[in-house]
Amino acid sequence: MTGSAAGTGSIAGSDSAATVDTATCGRLRRLAVPRFPAGLATPCLYVDLDVLDRNIAAMQATMDARGIALRPHVKTHKSVAIARRQLAAGAAGVTVGTLGEAEVMADAGITDLFVAYPVWAAGPKAKRLAALHARAQVIVGIDSAAGARGLAAAVARSATSLRVAVEIDSGQHRTGVTFDAAAGVAVAARDAGLEVIGVFTHGGHGYASGADRSTAASDEVRLLGEAAARLGAAGFTVSLISAGSSPTAVLSAVAPVNEERPGTYVFWDRQMVGLGAGEPDAVALVVLSTVVSAAVPGQVVLDAGAKTLTKDRPAWLDGFGALPAYPSATVSRVYDYHAVVWIPPGTPAPALGEVVAVVPNHVCPVVNQFDELVVGRAGVALERWPVDARGRSD
Amino acid sequence: MTGSAAGTGSIAGSDSAATVDTATCGRLRRLAVPRFPAGLATPCLYVDLDVLDRNIAAMQATMDARGIALRPHVKTHKSVAIARRQLAAGAAGVTVGTLGEAEVMADAGITDLFVAYPVWAAGPKAKRLAALHARAQVIVGIDSAAGARGLAAAVARSATSLRVAVEIDSGQHRTGVTFDAAAGVAVAARDAGLEVIGVFTHGGHGYASGADRSTAASDEVRLLGEAAARLGAAGFTVSLISAGSSPTAVLSAVAPVNEERPGTYVFWDRQMVGLGAGEPDAVALVVLSTVVSAAVPGQVVLDAGAKTLTKDRPAWLDGFGALPAYPSATVSRVYDYHAVVWIPPGTPAPALGEVVAVVPNHVCPVVNQFDELVVGRAGVALERWPVDARGRSD
Repeated sequence: MTGSAAGTGSIAGSDSAATVDTATCGRLRRLAVPRFPAGLATPCLYVDLDVLDRNIAAMQATMDARGIALRPHVKTHKSVAIARRQLAAGAAGVTVGTLGEAEVMADAGITDLFVAYPVWAAGPKAKRLAALHARAQVIVGIDSAAGARGLAAAVARSATSLRVAVEIDSGQHRTGVTFDAAAGVAVAARDAGLEVIGVFTHGGHGYASGADRSTAASDEVRLLGEAAARLGAAGFTVSLISAGSSPTAVLSAVAPVNEERPGTYVFWDRQMVGLGAGEPDAVALVVLSTVVSAAVPGQVVLDAGAKTLTKDRPAWLDGFGALPAYPSATVSRVYDYHAVVWIPPGTPAPALGEVVAVVPNHVCPVVNQFDELVVGRAGVALERWPVDARGRSD
Repeated sequence: MTGSAAGTGSIAGSDSAATVDTATCGRLRRLAVPRFPAGLATPCLYVDLDVLDRNIAAMQATMDARGIALRPHVKTHKSVAIARRQLAAGAAGVTVGTLGEAEVMADAGITDLFVAYPVWAAGPKAKRLAALHARAQVIVGIDSAAGARGLAAAVARSATSLRVAVEIDSGQHRTGVTFDAAAGVAVAARDAGLEVIGVFTHGGHGYASGADRSTAASDEVRLLGEAAARLGAAGFTVSLISAGSSPTAVLSAVAPVNEERPGTYVFWDRQMVGLGAGEPDAVALVVLSTVVSAAVPGQVVLDAGAKTLTKDRPAWLDGFGALPAYPSATVSRVYDYHAVVWIPPGTPAPALGEVVAVVPNHVCPVVNQFDELVVGRAGVALERWPVDARGRSD
């Protein structure tokens, strides 16, 4: 994906440049048909524990083999239970996107926390950051001198200095400074009293297929290396060189990178399978939904709408989710509580009242719609795990 | 809006056919700059109580003047406090989209409930429907004989019969039967033991501007009338003829329609203002968000991302929200916790750390991301109201 230049005003953003090729279509048609329990009120989220654990183990094994720390991003699952499974498998700590997520994890005793976000520590957030810093091992992202000074002021009365890492823009053009501006931000942070421990980036331009994804991963490695060198030259000891994004995590797990922060890999999703980053049988979470209407010819309507599946849809992806059991069907429109599924003439359709599994396009915002995950094995529900940090965008 | 024919497999759906005209652009540039309280942790939702009450009163006055019952859809606000304000202003009851929303309202003592959705009453939902029916005055939507039989089975042991209304497809082609199929569904429902009280529709194809919106409203009135006549001819007493959708509510509030079910009108939003359905100074809810990064030239980044603003964006609307104080800016990309705001060269930009108000494109799924609304007047926060039915898509 090579589009999404900064400052163009394009609304397509990261959705624009990837193309649907035959391989992508083929992968999406091979999505595994999940076994799931009967009798649940829909819509709900179902997680296959075997697939989940396999995904956790596979990513950990890859990183272990490379000698690279894995610090999973919990924004995907927002679940203490799943974070604990990741840590038990060998994760070095967790990544969070907000102070709210950090607080939920710290409340559960998960205290090695990288807030990989340029937190603006003013007002109530300054107090909350200080409280978090007092009870957890926190690293916070910075990408401006002013932001760094805000963090320093927030923790000014703390017994220990706050560790920070400078965010680098490796090509997504969202947050982060250029590699040659990293030392300037680091010096400002140090001058304000913060402990600068390294650099990080999110290769979000790697939400692409094939060569574009590899290029994005190379960008992460190369620009983090350049930035780390600049910090070293300015007298900093660089202990953290952290890359992250599920599509590029494996590709960018090479020196000098020493940490990866993927999130989506625990569940994968339709977008990731389409990009070739996840396998068609590695999707661990599905939305269970009931066919509530077949009144309009040529379609059926599910009870999983935009408040479940969301309207997240890259331009290269057809529809708002996939039905593995009905690979010809397209989730063509979503409304708050309705998903209209177009059934091509002559192809099988789910019956009125049938419960179907839907693989969401992008799993992270879908999980954020629900209070709990139904978790099971081989189609049998075993437990319900709370989505502990649901709604904690603050 | 004339697109979105059934069975075409188009993913554009209701987004496709409206065009951006000069009037729309002008209206969106005139969005009122809200006064809001300082010192809140962002992102959060702020509701101006004066504007909210004005919107509630205005819609009620219009319906009162026409002698038409107003039964607001609570899926927009999901708030008991706001539902009570609507009832105090004269609403005849409330509309809900799910059993979960109905249960939350009933728990609060709001018991005149129209579940305007073809509920599939199997498994746990059958039990829940029976329990709800036992403690509230419930009407449920039907659009199939099989669905009606499921409802009847669920309440088979109840002391009173369940009231149902037949949903008519007036042009949105989502759920609902054609007017000439309404009597067949009604007869099946009566034969199953349900009390058929009338017909309803949602003129969702009225999310359009100008003439297309008027046409959609006319469709609602005409096809509801036809369906009611068919029911009458089949021996039913038709006491309910209910139309609904905020863009068409006023336009379709004419006989034989005797009830309207708009939801979004309490807050309005960017889409509704763009369509001409709401006024630029009638937006009652804004997302408050902080500028957290200005590292990439030509843009700033807000902490209100896709888990706040959602990715809801009709094709005719530029960007994922509007900043009334910065009318030239475009919310060009959103990620889970980031919104990239493109600033055209030479135009004002919010400063790093500044809190800005964002008018969301579609307010309903945005409210569903939050546990509470901060409510105030003249820029002073007064109370926090829970989003009681948040996440109740079940």
